[in-house]
Amino acid sequence: MAYTKEDFKQLVQDIQAQSWYKNPIGFGIARVDRGQLNSDKILQATYPIINWEENYGSAAVLLNALKEAGEEVDTSKTELVCNLSDKFLASCVEAFRPYIPEAKGDEHKNVQVISTLASLPIDSGLTADDYKVVFIFEDEAVNSVEAAYLKLYALSTGKAKLRSLNLNGIFGALHNCAWVGNQPIELDWLRANEIVLKLSGKYPTIDMVDKFPRFLSHVIPADNTRILETSKVRFGAQLAGGTTVMPGAAYINFNAGTEGSVMVEGRISSSAVVGAGSDVGGGASILGVLSGTDGVPVSIGENTLLGANSCTGTAIGDSCILDAGVTILPGTKITLSEKAVAALKEINPDKEISTVMKGSDFQGVNGVHFRVNSQTGQTIAMRSTREVKLNADLH
Amino acid sequence: MAYTKEDFKQLVQDIQAQSWYKNPIGFGIARVDRGQLNSDKILQATYPIINWEENYGSAAVLLNALKEAGEEVDTSKTELVCNLSDKFLASCVEAFRPYIPEAKGDEHKNVQVISTLASLPIDSGLTADDYKVVFIFEDEAVNSVEAAYLKLYALSTGKAKLRSLNLNGIFGALHNCAWVGNQPIELDWLRANEIVLKLSGKYPTIDMVDKFPRFLSHVIPADNTRILETSKVRFGAQLAGGTTVMPGAAYINFNAGTEGSVMVEGRISSSAVVGAGSDVGGGASILGVLSGTDGVPVSIGENTLLGANSCTGTAIGDSCILDAGVTILPGTKITLSEKAVAALKEINPDKEISTVMKGSDFQGVNGVHFRVNSQTGQTIAMRSTREVKLNADLH
Amino acid sequence: MAYTKEDFKQLVQDIQAQSWYKNPIGFGIARVDRGQLNSDKILQATYPIINWEENYGSAAVLLNALKEAGEEVDTSKTELVCNLSDKFLASCVEAFRPYIPEAKGDEHKNVQVISTLASLPIDSGLTADDYKVVFIFEDEAVNSVEAAYLKLYALSTGKAKLRSLNLNGIFGALHNCAWVGNQPIELDWLRANEIVLKLSGKYPTIDMVDKFPRFLSHVIPADNTRILETSKVRFGAQLAGGTTVMPGAAYINFNAGTEGSVMVEGRISSSAVVGAGSDVGGGASILGVLSGTDGVPVSIGENTLLGANSCTGTAIGDSCILDAGVTILPGTKITLSEKAVAALKEINPDKEISTVMKGSDFQGVNGVHFRVNSQTGQTIAMRSTREVKLNADLH
Repeated sequence: MAYTKEDFKQLVQDIQAQSWYKNPIGFGIARVDRGQLNSDKILQATYPIINWEENYGSAAVLLNALKEAGEEVDTSKTELVCNLSDKFLASCVEAFRPYIPEAKGDEHKNVQVISTLASLPIDSGLTADDYKVVFIFEDEAVNSVEAAYLKLYALSTGKAKLRSLNLNGIFGALHNCAWVGNQPIELDWLRANEIVLKLSGKYPTIDMVDKFPRFLSHVIPADNTRILETSKVRFGAQLAGGTTVMPGAAYINFNAGTEGSVMVEGRISSSAVVGAGSDVGGGASILGVLSGTDGVPVSIGENTLLGANSCTGTAIGDSCILDAGVTILPGTKITLSEKAVAALKEINPDKEISTVMKGSDFQGVNGVHFRVNSQTGQTIAMRSTREVKLNADLH
Repeated sequence: MAYTKEDFKQLVQDIQAQSWYKNPIGFGIARVDRGQLNSDKILQATYPIINWEENYGSAAVLLNALKEAGEEVDTSKTELVCNLSDKFLASCVEAFRPYIPEAKGDEHKNVQVISTLASLPIDSGLTADDYKVVFIFEDEAVNSVEAAYLKLYALSTGKAKLRSLNLNGIFGALHNCAWVGNQPIELDWLRANEIVLKLSGKYPTIDMVDKFPRFLSHVIPADNTRILETSKVRFGAQLAGGTTVMPGAAYINFNAGTEGSVMVEGRISSSAVVGAGSDVGGGASILGVLSGTDGVPVSIGENTLLGANSCTGTAIGDSCILDAGVTILPGTKITLSEKAVAALKEINPDKEISTVMKGSDFQGVNGVHFRVNSQTGQTIAMRSTREVKLNADLH
Repeated sequence: MAYTKEDFKQLVQDIQAQSWYKNPIGFGIARVDRGQLNSDKILQATYPIINWEENYGSAAVLLNALKEAGEEVDTSKTELVCNLSDKFLASCVEAFRPYIPEAKGDEHKNVQVISTLASLPIDSGLTADDYKVVFIFEDEAVNSVEAAYLKLYALSTGKAKLRSLNLNGIFGALHNCAWVGNQPIELDWLRANEIVLKLSGKYPTIDMVDKFPRFLSHVIPADNTRILETSKVRFGAQLAGGTTVMPGAAYINFNAGTEGSVMVEGRISSSAVVGAGSDVGGGASILGVLSGTDGVPVSIGENTLLGANSCTGTAIGDSCILDAGVTILPGTKITLSEKAVAALKEINPDKEISTVMKGSDFQGVNGVHFRVNSQTGQTIAMRSTREVKLNADLH
């Protein structure tokens, strides 16, 4: 008797009805890199595909297969990291059977992962120990490397919104490694082997030493996205399609990024977000919550230009311009002419605009041009030349 | 009867006298990288040697050999991209015969290319499909990847002057790829193979995602030129001998660069050119035509210092100094004392100098020191301490 | 009769008592990379371990073994670079015999080097020509590549203090090379092979062109040190444990670095040093002696914050703040209120503080907050909010 898609759906319902079952927030199967000296240390988790608030049927199958394979499946914890086994794979293959023929291209990625694992050639040198099955049930502080990576994938693939995830504990969870391309190496292993490696001409070319990998080691960007140097985007950053990251002074940290097509030639610090159509000029700096802001993560609106070597420590609205070299910190006192006040009130009818404002007063104010008057040294604000779309609801 | 150099010259004359023949602006033979999924897509063209307004004898031989090999040779088009074949190679070898013995070192590079192609070992895995014979007859908008690369080579090898070539259409012609070292990879191929590559531990280390390769993937710099990080110079940039590019905030875009020994620790945007003996300080920004200038490409004169984190959006003369942190945009109002006006008039007798000038008024004015008065905040200009060589023709 | 540790000590004493003997400042055994065209040209020297004002017993053994092997050992020169031979190795193994069993982990690194060399597999392709035994007897100008590297190692491993070594002549001693990872390549070799390499698809991926290698090609940083991009730290830099170097606009040149846990997102030019607990903000620039300073190497104190895109051309004390975008050059005139003068005098009782000071007057002054008044453009100094530890000896 053939096992059908109907049978699959019934199986999922049966699993989901069991008392131990709980829908995860995210899950996936990762290949893990282990420490060269200490193989219990997980240095990196590479997910071919992650699931985030989706594909609960696959989640049910995987959790059930883990139970059948004898793994302890405790869904009351915030994270679950299980070993992969032949029994687990066999159970998954059995459940996914009706989907296997059509699991190609963009279809049924989780099934493709299982099929691929079930058919990995023996001579690949990889064993079940090189994989982990990972679930996150609650968005709490990070406990494991595997869960840390799952959250970073959720951010970098755009499946979770920037700033929406609890990343507390992530620096403690991740290990500082030397990286040779995508491969993490324990620093202690390098130390233990330094003499032999150097004398034999086999000392590796270290690309970086960090706890986080690079974005491009894990994520394939959109066709119209460009990253001119891999070191410029940390894993955990999010880049909307059409974003370009130049190799000069640019950097996008984890949990930071762009919400649309943005030209990035400057720094987007952790927790900062830049809106569609904006331009972060060469050497421009958007400060993070730990350095120069008043603790509020900085958002830059849409269609806004941060000039070369400008610096922003507070939120900036849509269609604004910061002239090259201008610094706006939360406490910067900015002078406006009566004409500028009137012009800005016209397009920001619900905002307080006055002749002297602090940087932090400009949150949500659109169409502002920030300049330094080169004859007086005064930092001023006026109406920018950029078009501002008024919120239709307000008029 | 021996075929001699005289015979070669006669052959060339005969070819050049034919009605279809036309001297090309540039030509060369490239190894091409094809798409992994779509082999008709040319991702990159690597030229061992290019010819630019030179070596018309070789051009005639190659064009004639293409005709003999049955290729369609239409010299009325702006670009010609032909397939390479054994017949083409045989015809070239026959024509170049008297030069083959002496084609070594710097002599007869085109003959060396033909000899090398004729003797590539079969086990190299390379076939005639991996090469193209490319000509540009008119400097019009770019149509093909092969011609785009030929123009970028002309710029980066210094055979064509910066800003002298028509690069319209180049962004449309080039494909956005993932790059593993010098090797371009289709993003769609990565997507199609992501699961297998990641699970088998063979996911490649992506160095960048861009339409352009890096300068050092195609060009060997002069002995006294230094590029401390390959990502800092895009292919299509031009670096005169003695230029040093530091790895901090530096970047030199395509169709931009230096005309002599220059220290580059800042950004030289596309279309900007810096004169010999000048210094682009750490984080200094020379704006491109699309960002902050008035549309005129920025030239920086000779022996000029752009201080750290300064910003220039307009042309600056010889022997000038921009203090660290100073921004000069085309519209920046700059104040000069009467003494400064007199001192600058003395070395710029043919220029208008007055007590208030805009940034764009300083085009061609030499010996200017731009500062911000730290007691008043005023942007001022005065006579720089740098020696200015007066134009002998004017005195 | 067994050869014992006592015998070893006696041997060392005997050697040291000889008239030719002299304790070296530094020594080590390096694997050298030779030119591909010119094998007499040493392109790089890689030391598995260096000795700096230490381990004179091993120095004596090595020098004696060189003499026994027929090498000319002239300890009156500033540098000694000798060939390694089987005879030299045999002599060293004989002398070090009682230490060989315990030469593991961190113990007896020099003995480990000798043992490793004595047991290198023949199929490694390496011969005695690939190694040099190197001594520095006087800290004079650099003459050889091998001694240059020994000094750079002394700096980068922290065995010698920053600015403490004579590095004159180092640019003349080192060769400008193309680097493929850790491997230097002569530019002339690339030129000689460009056609074959490019046509056969074997042109190497050049990471940089420079005289100096990168820090991470030679040094393993502390467990709590992070370098997010290898190009950002030149060999010869010194990074105290806990230092983090970000990949945006950061750069640390040779003979420059940090004295404690420092966040580096900006430039630390050659000869500049940053104290523990300080923060070099994104794009901040600490100038070197050749660019914008008054010739005095710049020191930044402890617990000091250089804001994003700030620029410093003069020494700054402990617990200071430079606001984002502020430039302090030696000649910058800075205005202080009477209140600021009083507050700064209180914590700097031995310093001259007045209402107008130049940037260079602030050397050794702690607790200063440098700002630009955004309403007047005036550069001002006031008491910073950072805690200053008063020198107990002064009170």
